Amino acid sequence: MSRPRISTFEQVMFFDTDCGGVVHNIAYLRFIETNRTHLAELLGMGLTEMAATHIFPVVVRTEVDYRKPARLADKLQVDGWLERIERLRFWVAFTITRPTDGTEILRCRQMLAVIRMPEGKPLRLPADWAGKYGQLQPIAPAGRGMR
Amino acid sequence: MSRPRISTFEQVMFFDTDCGGVVHNIAYLRFIETNRTHLAELLGMGLTEMAATHIFPVVVRTEVDYRKPARLADKLQVDGWLERIERLRFWVAFTITRPTDGTEILRCRQMLAVIRMPEGKPLRLPADWAGKYGQLQPIAPAGRGMR
Amino acid sequence: MSRPRISTFEQVMFFDTDCGGVVHNIAYLRFIETNRTHLAELLGMGLTEMAATHIFPVVVRTEVDYRKPARLADKLQVDGWLERIERLRFWVAFTITRPTDGTEILRCRQMLAVIRMPEGKPLRLPADWAGKYGQLQPIAPAGRGMR
Amino acid sequence: MSRPRISTFEQVMFFDTDCGGVVHNIAYLRFIETNRTHLAELLGMGLTEMAATHIFPVVVRTEVDYRKPARLADKLQVDGWLERIERLRFWVAFTITRPTDGTEILRCRQMLAVIRMPEGKPLRLPADWAGKYGQLQPIAPAGRGMR
Repeated sequence: MSRPRISTFEQVMFFDTDCGGVVHNIAYLRFIETNRTHLAELLGMGLTEMAATHIFPVVVRTEVDYRKPARLADKLQVDGWLERIERLRFWVAFTITRPTDGTEILRCRQMLAVIRMPEGKPLRLPADWAGKYGQLQPIAPAGRGMR
Repeated sequence: MSRPRISTFEQVMFFDTDCGGVVHNIAYLRFIETNRTHLAELLGMGLTEMAATHIFPVVVRTEVDYRKPARLADKLQVDGWLERIERLRFWVAFTITRPTDGTEILRCRQMLAVIRMPEGKPLRLPADWAGKYGQLQPIAPAGRGMR
Repeated sequence: MSRPRISTFEQVMFFDTDCGGVVHNIAYLRFIETNRTHLAELLGMGLTEMAATHIFPVVVRTEVDYRKPARLADKLQVDGWLERIERLRFWVAFTITRPTDGTEILRCRQMLAVIRMPEGKPLRLPADWAGKYGQLQPIAPAGRGMR
Repeated sequence: MSRPRISTFEQVMFFDTDCGGVVHNIAYLRFIETNRTHLAELLGMGLTEMAATHIFPVVVRTEVDYRKPARLADKLQVDGWLERIERLRFWVAFTITRPTDGTEILRCRQMLAVIRMPEGKPLRLPADWAGKYGQLQPIAPAGRGMR
């Protein structure tokens, strides 16, 4: 059973930073959204399909641990993967790292549900997910346990 | 003939600044959007009406002159007014000032059209505007000519 | 012992929504940041003081539960309060509600540390906090337990 | 004399759109900032140099013409180029297009000055620019005159 996983890359722009000299919390969320969008595409829920079907994965819960600050011009790697699935919900997890010095910037976990808009009706996860992803267990990022 | 005009107020938050130590260009646009939303309400196009009718004023052109930087914790005043109307388009103008020291931070003019979504079809301006606003001429902000 | 607590108010603008028709996750974070900024001021860490001393509260962990979507033009109330303090860290909590129909939109908890920038050195919490806030226990938002 | 010019690419994410179903004005500004950052690097003012020297190009004036809306999942191309230089200021111009159907989404021109932060002191443009770029004339995007 292979775990859906994707890496995306960002370079810190001025608009990502604040006057504390570091990347602003809100910018990290944008980086994670971009990665999650591509991860959802891997899972069969691409933006084009969503725009057509109005079936979207929606974030129900977010947990973020901010570990080290990133700075202007940093090149960051965002890794996102499917952590585990339940009947109506699934968990994805992310790390943001700065590959040039190996610093872990942030960890994030999100719980998602699949809904049909605009009613907001929650749907069961796609039927083939149980077979493909039912045995997945959460994994720890390299080197440390995820809380 | 009275000119529709409205003032809104903002305090600069961390997320409005960048690592240059000043307010980021993109944040000023948010301040102007908020003012314009309230100005549109004065003109009879409130958010609730728009959500119901899908008739929106859309920005066709923006001109911004950045004059002095604002900084963290600054309390800013945004003044917005209807500058003039044409048959299918109208111009609004804005200044952002820091009242504590009288500094003018920014000037902005926007040209808008009224469209029906999702077709994006441009509509004639409301019938009563010609009588109410047809004679309005552009005004200069206090003390200096607008380019 | 009185618990520092503050309410702030937001109206949902176009730039807060996305094409799913609801408020975007990132916008809620901005609303919470604004509330937390005023809460920090209540705790003696105002923006002006921070700009002068370079001593900032920084968010170390964020947990958000998205409960119901807010929509364009909604008037939202953000309530933020100090939940409890430790030696080097403190927890704040927030709810966002739509008072017109009593809907709870979101709950959020954040753990913060106090650091001196640009070194990022963590500082002990102010000496008088133990006496003023040492006995505070987390409270549940009205009606339901916080997970 | 070769004109500095760069293309960058964006895919429209949920957070770039609003509940009108189209990309929000503020998102386009982010796309342009990213392109301009890379264009500045071509001109010898990279983010890393700026972070070290505190010499930044700052935007003094922005003009944007919004032509057609972009939508969720659109893949957009941003083209940016140096338009012309003066003694203390220079103009850059941008188009955003959707290559899949050749639609021009937006045109933008920005006037910039070079300043040293935090004083905000304007500096003369680099000495070698007159020789390299002094003869550049504004160019029209393909097919239509720039207003």
